[in-house]
Amino acid sequence: MKVRNFDSKKTLDVITYRLEVLSSKRIRQKLAAGEDVKGYWGTAPTGKPHIGYLVPFVKIAECIAAGIDIQILIADTYGFLVNYDATMEVVERRSQYYSLLITSILRSLGVPESKIWIERESTFATTEAFRGNFLRLCAASTQDDIRSVGLEVATTSMLSPLLCPLYQALSEVHTGCDFQLGGMDQRGMFAYADKLLPRVGHRPVSHLLAPMIPGLKTEKMSSSAPEDTKIMFFDSAEAVRAKIAEADVSPTEPTRNALLACLEHIVFPVYALGIMAPGTLPEAALAGGVAKRYESYKDLEEDFFRGLVDVDSLRSLVADTLNHILEPVRQEYATSKEWQAVDRFAYGTPDGH
Amino acid sequence: MKVRNFDSKKTLDVITYRLEVLSSKRIRQKLAAGEDVKGYWGTAPTGKPHIGYLVPFVKIAECIAAGIDIQILIADTYGFLVNYDATMEVVERRSQYYSLLITSILRSLGVPESKIWIERESTFATTEAFRGNFLRLCAASTQDDIRSVGLEVATTSMLSPLLCPLYQALSEVHTGCDFQLGGMDQRGMFAYADKLLPRVGHRPVSHLLAPMIPGLKTEKMSSSAPEDTKIMFFDSAEAVRAKIAEADVSPTEPTRNALLACLEHIVFPVYALGIMAPGTLPEAALAGGVAKRYESYKDLEEDFFRGLVDVDSLRSLVADTLNHILEPVRQEYATSKEWQAVDRFAYGTPDGH
Repeated sequence: MKVRNFDSKKTLDVITYRLEVLSSKRIRQKLAAGEDVKGYWGTAPTGKPHIGYLVPFVKIAECIAAGIDIQILIADTYGFLVNYDATMEVVERRSQYYSLLITSILRSLGVPESKIWIERESTFATTEAFRGNFLRLCAASTQDDIRSVGLEVATTSMLSPLLCPLYQALSEVHTGCDFQLGGMDQRGMFAYADKLLPRVGHRPVSHLLAPMIPGLKTEKMSSSAPEDTKIMFFDSAEAVRAKIAEADVSPTEPTRNALLACLEHIVFPVYALGIMAPGTLPEAALAGGVAKRYESYKDLEEDFFRGLVDVDSLRSLVADTLNHILEPVRQEYATSKEWQAVDRFAYGTPDGH
Repeated sequence: MKVRNFDSKKTLDVITYRLEVLSSKRIRQKLAAGEDVKGYWGTAPTGKPHIGYLVPFVKIAECIAAGIDIQILIADTYGFLVNYDATMEVVERRSQYYSLLITSILRSLGVPESKIWIERESTFATTEAFRGNFLRLCAASTQDDIRSVGLEVATTSMLSPLLCPLYQALSEVHTGCDFQLGGMDQRGMFAYADKLLPRVGHRPVSHLLAPMIPGLKTEKMSSSAPEDTKIMFFDSAEAVRAKIAEADVSPTEPTRNALLACLEHIVFPVYALGIMAPGTLPEAALAGGVAKRYESYKDLEEDFFRGLVDVDSLRSLVADTLNHILEPVRQEYATSKEWQAVDRFAYGTPDGH
C-alpha cells in the first residue's frame, strides 16, 4: 500500500474541496478501510479546449499533490459518437492533441511526469468484457433513461449520441476507479450511471461535480461561443490580458462572474499549489487605495460584493496567473513539430496561426 | 472455382423462384462474371421456431441442391438486443437450440451434412473490424432511419432494439455473402441496409424476400399466437394432422390461406427436391370425384379457386409432407440428451413434455 500524505478526513477534503459532492460513499468506505482511492476525469476529444478545463486540471493537480492517483481518460469512442461528423482518423488526432495539451498543462501545474496518467477509452472499449457490459446495459436502458441524461442527448436526431451515456457509465466500471470527477453538466450522466449500472451488476463509484467557468460575456464558457467570451490555451499573453480587461464583472451574481470563478477555482488553488513565485499571493487594492493580502478566496469575495475591491487589480491577478500557467504550454507547442502536425490534421487551423 | 450445376439464368431462377426480388444486381453481376454467388439467411434465437421457418429452409435446400452455398447465421447478439429480458446465457443456449434444430431440419430436407453451414453473428461481431463499422454506422444513422425499419423497432421504449438494424445490416458486410434471404417482414431492414451501408463505404448485397406462412386461423403464423394457429416443429404427427384439419381455408384470399401457402412453399418444392418417395406427388380428388395429379402448384391453385378441389385431400397432402419432414427431427430430439438439456436451459419447457 502506498503511503498516504494525509489522514482520511483530510484526504476526503482535498478531493472534494470546492466541488459539489453528489455521492462520496465509495471514497469514504475505502478511506475508512485504510485503502487507497483512485479517481478519474474523462474528456471527449472534440473541439479545442478553452481555459474552463483548468478547473478540473487544477483539482487533479491538487489531488496528485496530496498523493491521490487521478487517471485522465480520453474518451475517444465517445468523442466519435457524439461528434458524428468527424471521421475516426480525425478523432484519433484530436485524442493525440488532447493528450499533448493535457500533459503540458499538468506539467505547468506542477504535476510530476511520473504521475501524469492518461489513457484512451478505446483501450478498454475494445475488450470482450466491455462488449458484454455494453450489450447488457443497452438491454437494461430505456430510451427515456438515455434522454434524461441531458439536453445534448435528449434533443439529438442521430442515433450515435444515444450511446454516449453507456460509454461514460461503463468507463466507471472499466477504469476501476473509485470516483469520477465531472463538470456540473455531468449531473444527468452520473444519475444515469447510478441508476443503471447496479442493474447490470456493477457497484457505483462516487461522483463529484466541478463548477464551470462562466463566459467572459456569457453564462457559459463554450468552445462554440464567440472569441471574446472565452480564453483559449493558445491565446497570447496580450490577448489573455485584453480579453480579461473586457470581461463583464457582475457585482451581484457570482455565478455570472468569470473573474471570480477564475479566482476561486484557478488563482487561489494555484497559489496554494506553490507553483507561482512567492510574492504573487492575491494582493488587491481596496477601494480606499490600501493594498490587502487575502489568505482565502472567501475573504476576497466578501469584500468584492461589499464594493471594497478594485476590479482592475483582480483582472491583473487572473491574467497573471493564467499567463503563468499558459506560457510553458505555448512554448512547448511552438517547439514541437509533432504537436503542430497533429494539430493541423485534427483541426485544420493550427494554434497561433 | 466451384463447378456450377446450372447456367447463370437457371442459377438466378433457382435462387429467386417464389421469392420477391427486391434487388438482384449483385447476384446478376457475379453470375455474369462467371463467379460463384453465396447467400445467407439469418435468424435471431428468440422463441421456439414454428413451421413457418420451413419456407426459408426449403429455399435453402433448393439452393444447396443447385450448388449455391447458403450460410445460416444465428444472430445471437441481435437476439439478445431484441429480446432484452433474456440473459446472455439463455440466448447462448437458444443459439445452440436453433443450431441443433436447423441442422436436423436441413438434414431432413436432404441437405448433405457437409453443406450445412451455420455460424454465429458473435464470431464477427466481436472483431475490431466490426466495431469500427458499427460505430461508423451509428454515427451515420438518424433515429428516424432506425425507426423506419419496422414496427418492432419503431415502437420500442427500450434502447437495445434500436441497435438491431445495425447488426443485421453489418451482417451483410461481415458474412461476405452476395445476397440475403429474408422474410417479407424484413423489407424495412433491407431498405435500411441499402440506404446506410454505402454511406460507410460498403457495397450493397442483393435482397430477396420469402413469403410468410399465414396462421391456421390468423393472418400471421406467430410464436406468440395461440397453439391452434400454428404448427410447432415438435407437434406430434397426430397434432399436426388435427391442427391442419381445423385450419381455416379461405376460398378467395390466397394470402390468408395457410394450406395453400404450405402447398406452394413447402409441399411442391419438397416433392421437387425428391426427398419424399415417388407416388406421393400432389394428387387431389376433384370435386367430381376423379383424382388428378398436379405437376405445378399454379395448376392446383387455379382449380382450387374454381372450387374444383377437395379440401380434405389438400389437408392430407400438407399434413403428410410436414410429418415426413418432422419425423426424423422428432426422433433426433427424442434420442439426444444434449439437445434436451439445451432445451431445458433455453426454454424451461422441453419439447414433447
